[in-house]
Amino acid sequence: MADPSFSYLTSLECSETGRPYDADRPQNLSDAGATLFARYDLDAVRAVVSPAEIARRPETLWRYHEILPVRSPEHVHGFDEGMTPLLPAPTLGAEIGIRNLLVKDESPLPTGTFKARGAAVGVARAAELGITRLAMPTNGNAGAAWSAYGARYGLDVTVVMPVDAPRITRSEAAFAGARVSLIDGLISDAGRTVGRHVATTGLFDASTLKEPYRVEGKKTMGLEIVEQLGWRVPDVIIYPTGGGVGLIGIHKALLELQELGWIGDRLPRLVSAQAAGCDPVVRAYESGADNVTALEGTTTIAFGVNVPSPLLGGPSVLRAIRATGGTAVRIDDDDALAALRATAEAEGLLLCPEGAITVAAARRLREAGWIAEDDEVVLLNTGAGNKYPDAVEVTLPVMRRDDDLPHV
Amino acid sequence: MADPSFSYLTSLECSETGRPYDADRPQNLSDAGATLFARYDLDAVRAVVSPAEIARRPETLWRYHEILPVRSPEHVHGFDEGMTPLLPAPTLGAEIGIRNLLVKDESPLPTGTFKARGAAVGVARAAELGITRLAMPTNGNAGAAWSAYGARYGLDVTVVMPVDAPRITRSEAAFAGARVSLIDGLISDAGRTVGRHVATTGLFDASTLKEPYRVEGKKTMGLEIVEQLGWRVPDVIIYPTGGGVGLIGIHKALLELQELGWIGDRLPRLVSAQAAGCDPVVRAYESGADNVTALEGTTTIAFGVNVPSPLLGGPSVLRAIRATGGTAVRIDDDDALAALRATAEAEGLLLCPEGAITVAAARRLREAGWIAEDDEVVLLNTGAGNKYPDAVEVTLPVMRRDDDLPHV
Repeated sequence: MADPSFSYLTSLECSETGRPYDADRPQNLSDAGATLFARYDLDAVRAVVSPAEIARRPETLWRYHEILPVRSPEHVHGFDEGMTPLLPAPTLGAEIGIRNLLVKDESPLPTGTFKARGAAVGVARAAELGITRLAMPTNGNAGAAWSAYGARYGLDVTVVMPVDAPRITRSEAAFAGARVSLIDGLISDAGRTVGRHVATTGLFDASTLKEPYRVEGKKTMGLEIVEQLGWRVPDVIIYPTGGGVGLIGIHKALLELQELGWIGDRLPRLVSAQAAGCDPVVRAYESGADNVTALEGTTTIAFGVNVPSPLLGGPSVLRAIRATGGTAVRIDDDDALAALRATAEAEGLLLCPEGAITVAAARRLREAGWIAEDDEVVLLNTGAGNKYPDAVEVTLPVMRRDDDLPHV
Repeated sequence: MADPSFSYLTSLECSETGRPYDADRPQNLSDAGATLFARYDLDAVRAVVSPAEIARRPETLWRYHEILPVRSPEHVHGFDEGMTPLLPAPTLGAEIGIRNLLVKDESPLPTGTFKARGAAVGVARAAELGITRLAMPTNGNAGAAWSAYGARYGLDVTVVMPVDAPRITRSEAAFAGARVSLIDGLISDAGRTVGRHVATTGLFDASTLKEPYRVEGKKTMGLEIVEQLGWRVPDVIIYPTGGGVGLIGIHKALLELQELGWIGDRLPRLVSAQAAGCDPVVRAYESGADNVTALEGTTTIAFGVNVPSPLLGGPSVLRAIRATGGTAVRIDDDDALAALRATAEAEGLLLCPEGAITVAAARRLREAGWIAEDDEVVLLNTGAGNKYPDAVEVTLPVMRRDDDLPHV
């Protein structure tokens, strides 16, 4: 049953016009065709809970339940997800010349990527609102996560993913009982297919930013980073940007924390790192545009960020970068792979290719002087490298049983 | 610096003769050729710490530091590992007829498997003792974990694994800077190769149960299960058994908790689940033997338990089963795969094949009446299913961009 002290969700609000919408029935876009964002009674939250109280709660993302949209504790029965490690990377930091380099490592999450945050909150809220069937396009990992949570919550999930998405994600989704379709195209093509499907079937459209709650899950990355630093913000956060929902979520978290008075005026500079083969946000940032123009023929080994456009999220992503004094950087695949290797050797962390982009971006921004030696820099590693066997393949000879190892 | 209130390690003790050995220098086997186990001053631990105090500590396996062997807090700088979820599996439980079915899900650990526990403690202690180079045979995942921690702690790691080990594990080890060799054989062949190598090079032999501290890491599975149940034991714990170190560790944890007075006289019945194609422990258990006889020509899709013999661990594994009134079960690969699929559909958990064996074992033991409907049963899922793409491969057609999804 809804417990008024569990969530202080008050309404949904059009991200462009500010018009309020009822949060207690299924919603997609506003009448203006824009994303709806969840709003909370933060004055009430400030009165009933404190950082010290939160510190005593179990280490899951639900420790922030007052500013999450699920109203009933019994609708939280996922996988005890969240509170991923914020790991010092001192050896890598010394190589790059950044004294306080930290990796927010999202690989421990269910299905091995940060997509589980959006799914944990999005699916729990969908179930609470009585939604039973939903559909979404995905670059693989979001589909895997939503399918896993769909199974956990008893929802019927349809996902459409590019045939080039990480192969394991189709198994994760299919084994969890989702209806999985592969498409000869990019996630933008998958999105159009889903759009046609929901229009004729009445399935709930759970596409990124077309439903209001995935971003609430993603925002917990920002909440956790701040809490793990002792309710303090770092100087820089670098985020590998595809659809950009994580960056939007982190920015939303920071603004809510400011309004709660739990952090001060200063915000971290938010950096969007993209693959050189798919850099629509970087182009828009550099050109001074207010929105992002979709690209064609994009390509990168970091498949999770092969997103031709953040679509509805474009304005919010650019706002997050500019409002915080951040920047946007494009990274070649070769530099990303070199960074992946360097991080594994230096720290024992096998990043996903998307996460490796943030390491290369940190190096680039340090070399350019944009990051200072004393800056505290947080890199988002959005998933487990072991989900990308093709990106990290090694070739080794095979010994016979009686062979001796070479002495070294 | 060693902090006497951090670890209450007193000595190592021969598991066969009880003779004590110095814990503060590198050790392998006892003079009797048996494994050395770590012993602690549990009277002192009981006097200085309580379950309530532990409950206030960060959610990593280091919350049990008094009964772990690392003496200096500054030698703990891994990946904030441990305190994996103990997840209710109500839908799967209802299917099997077990009202309280729980999955201890080890997939969030670094490198995605429970091997990280042994590596976290084993590598930290090796570094503390001044060891700089070590070698070990592995079925893949232990090598990946020890390599990752080796990089984190600056140790030089040599691993030898069967060519049939999960492919991703060779990349995980190699990217972390380890020397990786593939062998045309089983882990027993890899063990003999490592044995010859350490004899001539002086590398530290970090083979399972030939070094004393990996089992200390594994025992934290037992500590966590008990704490997560409110310092109470379940009725049954089912463990997929290869080398058996996890089962030995869980049993050791339970005995230490009894001596601390933190649990009562009753212990959970410990069940060893093996693949039908590699069942040396089951055979030894059934025949009433005190040790395990190595098999030849073993084979199973659950590669982590394709271990022809626990070798040195044989007597301890059999003791753990018999002393707790447990049992041993063999599971066909087909039943394991069916269990893997059933668990993913019912709970959204993609188990590793080894973990799936425990689900099939629970079903079998319930059908036989050995497990009662009201028993509280904990299954060990030792790793992430997404590290085994071949075991969960699905074949799907590819749509063209303009195709519509089938209506259902």
